[in-house]
Order: sequence, then C-alpha cells, then structure tokens
Amino acid sequence: MGKSKLTKQSENFADWYQDIVREAELAEPSEVRGCGIVRPYGLKIWELIKAELNRMIEADGVENVYFPIFVPLENLQAEKAHVEGFSPELAIVTYGGGEELVNKLAVRPTSEAAMYRTYAKWIQSYNDLPLRLNQWANVVRWEKRPRAFLRWSEFLWQEGHTVFADEAGARAEVWHMLGVYKKIYEYMAIPIFSGLKSESEKFAGAVMTTTAEIMAKDGKAIQGATSHYLGTNFAKVFGVEYLGADGQKHLGHQNSWGLSWRSVGAVIMAHGDDNGLRLPPNIAPIQIVIVPIYKDENKAKVLEFTENLKNKLTAYRVKLDNRENLTPGFKFNHWELKGVPVRLEVGEKEIDKGEVTIFRRDLNTKEVVKLAGLEDALASLLVDIHKNLYEQALAFSKSHIHRIESLDDIKDQVGFFEASWSEDPESEKLLKEKFMMVSRLLPQENESQAPKNKKCFITGQAAKHDWLFAKSY
Amino acid sequence: MGKSKLTKQSENFADWYQDIVREAELAEPSEVRGCGIVRPYGLKIWELIKAELNRMIEADGVENVYFPIFVPLENLQAEKAHVEGFSPELAIVTYGGGEELVNKLAVRPTSEAAMYRTYAKWIQSYNDLPLRLNQWANVVRWEKRPRAFLRWSEFLWQEGHTVFADEAGARAEVWHMLGVYKKIYEYMAIPIFSGLKSESEKFAGAVMTTTAEIMAKDGKAIQGATSHYLGTNFAKVFGVEYLGADGQKHLGHQNSWGLSWRSVGAVIMAHGDDNGLRLPPNIAPIQIVIVPIYKDENKAKVLEFTENLKNKLTAYRVKLDNRENLTPGFKFNHWELKGVPVRLEVGEKEIDKGEVTIFRRDLNTKEVVKLAGLEDALASLLVDIHKNLYEQALAFSKSHIHRIESLDDIKDQVGFFEASWSEDPESEKLLKEKFMMVSRLLPQENESQAPKNKKCFITGQAAKHDWLFAKSY
Repeated sequence: MGKSKLTKQSENFADWYQDIVREAELAEPSEVRGCGIVRPYGLKIWELIKAELNRMIEADGVENVYFPIFVPLENLQAEKAHVEGFSPELAIVTYGGGEELVNKLAVRPTSEAAMYRTYAKWIQSYNDLPLRLNQWANVVRWEKRPRAFLRWSEFLWQEGHTVFADEAGARAEVWHMLGVYKKIYEYMAIPIFSGLKSESEKFAGAVMTTTAEIMAKDGKAIQGATSHYLGTNFAKVFGVEYLGADGQKHLGHQNSWGLSWRSVGAVIMAHGDDNGLRLPPNIAPIQIVIVPIYKDENKAKVLEFTENLKNKLTAYRVKLDNRENLTPGFKFNHWELKGVPVRLEVGEKEIDKGEVTIFRRDLNTKEVVKLAGLEDALASLLVDIHKNLYEQALAFSKSHIHRIESLDDIKDQVGFFEASWSEDPESEKLLKEKFMMVSRLLPQENESQAPKNKKCFITGQAAKHDWLFAKSY
Repeated sequence: MGKSKLTKQSENFADWYQDIVREAELAEPSEVRGCGIVRPYGLKIWELIKAELNRMIEADGVENVYFPIFVPLENLQAEKAHVEGFSPELAIVTYGGGEELVNKLAVRPTSEAAMYRTYAKWIQSYNDLPLRLNQWANVVRWEKRPRAFLRWSEFLWQEGHTVFADEAGARAEVWHMLGVYKKIYEYMAIPIFSGLKSESEKFAGAVMTTTAEIMAKDGKAIQGATSHYLGTNFAKVFGVEYLGADGQKHLGHQNSWGLSWRSVGAVIMAHGDDNGLRLPPNIAPIQIVIVPIYKDENKAKVLEFTENLKNKLTAYRVKLDNRENLTPGFKFNHWELKGVPVRLEVGEKEIDKGEVTIFRRDLNTKEVVKLAGLEDALASLLVDIHKNLYEQALAFSKSHIHRIESLDDIKDQVGFFEASWSEDPESEKLLKEKFMMVSRLLPQENESQAPKNKKCFITGQAAKHDWLFAKSY
C-alpha cells in the first residue's frame, strides 16, 4: 500500500477515486453486482456523519420511525409520476416463505409509498400537524453503472417525511431542511451550492425539488442531498387528510428530504489529493495518529512514552501505530493515504527535548511544538484544519464556475457553468446528448433575479433564470 | 387511551402484549403482512439499547462493517444445514432493474453466506486473526404467525461475525459474547438464563449455539440473543483459510452472534403490568415526566414553575406534559401506560411549600420530597428503580422454575421446568407435540454436573444433563 498505487487525480480522476476507495480500505465490490461492501474505516465515516445529522434532526423536533423494507407494488403504482420514475430501478420480491406471492413486493427505493397510507390513519385533525418523522434505512435502486458510495444498487440513508396543514408551512420546511443539510456539509468542511432542480431533474412525484450540490475536484457535480415539496400529489392518492379548524376536510401538504452515504463519496472527492484522503477532523475515524520513531537501543523508551502520550489524549480519536517491522516512512504514507488529519512523530530526540513533530494532512506541512500545552495546541490545530479544508474547497468551487453565453463557451473547461436558460426541457436533452451535462440547479439567490443575458445559451429563446450546469456523478 | 384498553395479564397475556404495543404507540401492523411499523416511542427504546450495545461491542475491539442486503442464492445453498434451516423463510428477488435475474437473490436472513467468501479474501495469514466484525442491519425471515418485535418477517439486529485461528479461541469468544449479552440485558434490568441449545434448537450451520433466555411474566421463554460456534463448517465451504506460523494452510474457526429488537419485546414482557409498560431508566425514551396541576387562577404560575423545573433537569430525558384540556388523572394514566419511570406532580401547594410529589412507576407509589436537592434525589431514585426492576424480575424468574421428574409433573404450572434429560431429539419432538414445549437451554452451570435424577423425565432412559424446558415466544 502507498502513494504508488493511486492514479494521479490529473490523469484520471475517476480512476483515482476507485483507487483511493480500495487502497484506503473504505469499500469494495461485493458478490452481488451493483452492491458494495463498506469496510470499517469507510463505515465509521458514515457513522460519524449520521450521528451528527441525527442529533440535528432530533434537535429540530423530528422523531425517528421504522417502516418495512417491502412496499406493495400497487402502492408504488398509485402515484403516476412516482412509478414512472422508479419502475426501471426496482428490485421485486416474488417468492416469500417458500410460496409465490400473490401480491408482489418491491424493495423500497424510497418510502413515500410505504408510509403515507399509514400517515393517513395517524392524522385526524389539524392538531396532529405538522407530523415530522425520519427514518434511517437501506433502500435499493437498481444500478447498471455502479460507483462506490455514489451509485450502488443498495445504499444507506435517512429519509424525512413530513406533513403540514398548508402549502406555506411545507414550502418553508423544504428550505429549512436544505439549511440543515448545508450545516451537515459544513460539518464535513464542504461548501454546497443550494437551489432548485429543473422539471426533468426533480424527484419523481414532487412539485419542487431543492438540492445541495457539491463540486468534486475534477469540477463535476455530486448531488449531496435533496429536499422536496410533494404538494398534495401523494396525499390525494393515499388519503392524507385532516379535519381543519373550519370543520372541513383538507389534504395535507407533504415533504420528503434525504441524505445518503453519497456524502462519504463527496468527502473523498471534495478533499482528497494525490497522496490519498484528507479527512475533516469531525468525521475522521482517527483524528490523530502517533508514529513512534526508534532504533533497537531506544525502542522501549520511545514505545513507553508514546503509549503514555496516547493515553493522555483522551479527548480525541487517537491511534498509536506501534506495528513492528514497518518503517516510519511506510507508516507516514499509510496514514496520509487514509487521510488522518494529524500525525505526531515522536523519537528519542523529541522526548529528550520535550517536543513533538506535528504533521498536518491538510497542508502536508510539519512543525515542532512543545509537549507542554500539546493538548491545547491540538485542539486549536483541529479547528484550524477544519477551517482550512473548508476554505480550500470553497476557493476551488468559486474559481471553477465559468460564466458562458453559448454552447461554444463550454470548450474543455473544468467546473460548473453559469448560464441564462430558457428552462426548456428539450434544450436540456440536447445538452445531455452533446455535452453529457444537465442543469444542476437554479441557485436560490438567482430565483428572483433577472438573468444576466436574457437569451438562452442553448436555444437563443428568452431566458428565465441564471442556472448552473455541470457534468455529474 | 387508558388502563381500560388493556386486557389484564392474568386473563390473556398475549392479548395484553398486543394491547400494550398498540396503546403505548410502540408499533403497529403494516400493509405488508408479517412486517411491522415501529413508531417513535418504540424505536427510541431500540435506539437506546443499540447505542449501549454498540459501545460495548466497540470497546471490545470489534469494528462495524456493512454487507449487501442481497445474498446470491447459490451462496446460501453452499452450507447444507444452513440452507435447510433457512430455505423455508427466504424472500427471493427475481426481478431487478426491469429484467428477470439470471442469478436469483435472497434477502439476507442472516449474513454468514453474504460475508464469508469476502472474509476469505481478507484473511491471508495468522497475522490477520482474529478478525472480529459486526453489522447493524435489517434481515428478513418469512413469518406466518407474526408477533410485534418478537416475530416479524423483517427485523433489525446486530450480527457479529468473527474468525479465530483455533477452536479454543473461537469457543472462548462464544461465551465471552454471551457475557456481553448478559450485560446488555442487565442494562435493561433483565436477568437472563444462559447456556447451550439442544441439537434441534441450535442455529442452522452451527456446531454449538449458546443462548440468553428471558422469562416473560406469563412464564414463557423469550430467546433474547444467541452466540454460535460455527466450527469450520462455513470456512470449508467459502475457503476461509490462513497461513499459519507453521507455513501450513489452516481453516479458520468461526463464530456468529446476534441480538435483535426482540429485546424490546423482552423488556415489555419482563417488566410490564396491568397498567402498562414499566421501563428501566436506561432505555426509557422519557425518564421523567412533569405533570403541572393547576386551576385557571394559578395556571400561569404553575406552568412557569414547571417549565423552569424542566429546564433545570438537563441530565435526564424529561418531558413536560403541559397539554391543554386534559385532566391530571388522564395524564397520570397516559404516562403510566407508557412506562415512564418517574412522574413529578407539581401544583401551587407544592410550589409554595418548596416540595414536589414523586411517583415511581416500578412500585406505583408516591412520596413528597423537598425541591432543594431534587436533582440528587432523582439520580439515586433512578438507580433504585433500575435495581428494583431487576430484583423483581429475578425473584419472579427464580420462583417460577419447577423441578419435574416426569411429564405428569408439568400440569398447568406456569414457568420454566427443570428436568433431567436424555437429549434424545425424538423425545423433544414428543414434548413439542403434546405440551407445545421444547428445551430452552442446558444452563451453563449444569454442563459439567451430573443430572439430579439420572433417568430422563420423558423416556426413562439414562439422562445426560439437567435442562430447562418451557413454552416460548
């Protein structure tokens, strides 16, 4: 294992990604085509993201619930746009308990159709609203071109499903939850682009989809989370009604919002470099690795010292790498590959001088600090690493947005393209065919602004807004 | 909602269970026959159990991993006893992504067959052992007679899968992990019976199964967790081999061990009474409920006081029930039904005297305590409630074990039956047919002891050990 096994990002970013996922022991393909195995180091990153997002969601007053993995096919077929969107991706159970099933079951691709008939039972009057529930679950969407974390047939996620008495309440929550996703990405030191999806890119069954988009280091977009206003589309079908204060029946206004372990893929692609991962401290399974540097004659002394040092740093996730028969240089490469934010190098010289050498992975630089006060130094160092990773990603994102006025301007530039657009679905199809690119979002701040160039960059028709376009994962 | 909606335990315990699951809003049937919906109050109990068990497992050096929900059918068929045991319970996916699958997939009923071919790749030499991984996941075992938490077609659980270099190491871990399960049940204030399963009751594919059995308040047994020694049965089939220090190839010795949300069912059945749940403080979603008692003229004063009181008790999971238009009596019943360990009743009289009335759910008693020092009083009260629930359950379990020498002794006694047994599988079949009872376990302490009556209570043949028998959920 080491640097040599990684393709350079500049040579082939997709290959680099595949290499780092394998070499850092994050995940690997399974025996089931399209599904992956997430190894402990990769899963821990997800668990740390999940724990913080769950804390935020619960603090927001949302409660967790668990619905079955199976959805009656007829439920999925009830909402027309929904079934059209998801049918091609379904896994279908036709046998259960040794018998062919009369009513076939889909493995949930998302849980609107699994939940809302039960919601209809739970909701009687306006007193029961808003109803705000969340589920941590696995879902299955058949994937012909799998990519680790970003596109597997099975993935883990959370899906929030809420019901409001009116449209205003529901629409406000859509943006509020997108704000929660912005915060959880900030927790991963990742800036997001937030805004609206186009008609063709919105969630199947939604009235409106908002999205948190992330720019990978090759300039492509990653859809990092979405928050949808479903209107009364599902409420009509599943009978989600309530008795209002006016004594009349009304349809509930529904939202759903989700974030998956794609976020782990986003962390890899937004922060990694040619030497491997660079993990933000908040979600690093190991925040600090200690590498003892010794010869035979001072081995006992150095090992004892580093063991004590490890035991002192209880506030952090610390690993002491005291493996035998491996050189310090090998260990350095290993933990750089794995993206550990901070490495402490301790040899006899450092011990005698009361010092320790600190390597920080975000800048790949070293400095020598005094052992006295090390804990405080580490605390502010981790904060600084987080901040620096965020600022690097933000600077990269900002410097890779290209304003274009026509298709000719795309050339072979890397990044997102800002353009005035007619929002004509046909023009988006053309863009997809010719440039493998679709609209990513209408940035929230552009929604109420006149487009910069009033002519559509594709059709020359009247433009409605300034959108961002990009290739995507 | 209230006491009246619960069947009395003494009338029909199974009905009481169904009533309390519904009325306490723990869970309900779903649209998919055999699968349940776990509502927020029920799921939170599971999440609290899960968090503590995960902490214990990780502290034990085990790492979490995630394998796909689908298992190639051919993998499941590779180990003969395994496929025989699980075939009748499988859900089979035959269509994926709009096409009929050439290789059919089972939804995992357990993950031995999903994991071990990959384990074989990960394990090269003895340096890679022991390999100790755990997975939190959903599994599906088709269930024709579902019962909330205890028997649903889909359930959530953890499954540990470990590999050791030799039999001794593996067998030691089997009992070690059973010890971990004993501790997590102690965390739920539940004493367990621990020991070995009989040949016919052991896990399909295992050499040896150990079990944590719990006595419900109707004397029936609940299998609360199991820990298996798989020998080299799966290792042979999936090629789990390692290069020993001797330069030779050896088969790995494997274990698996699991605990599911059946544990929530065990908590309900071991502690509940005719008034509802009685939750141990460790896993109570709400540990303390505050019920303000007021009239129109002192409403503002009482509500402000209880709001402040709630905000002071930050060390606990506290709920202030300030719902309008409900009497204190209604609220008392409601939270008793939901099993909240401690209720604080606060009215103007209490406020003026600097006192609060404390109701404890384990004893259904009240006492008045001074507000000064309330926090300390609550801390020791919660410890005492935990202890008392444990001791009540232990006393119940101990007093409901009946020593029997023949089938005639069973009569209509309620509880577990201790008897000397030949361990003849045919005799167990007879017991099942005539008394709907099987062996639950050979208690660990009886394994090396001669049976009390050397003749089998069923066949009159030579007895091998003293076993415990019971009806079960």
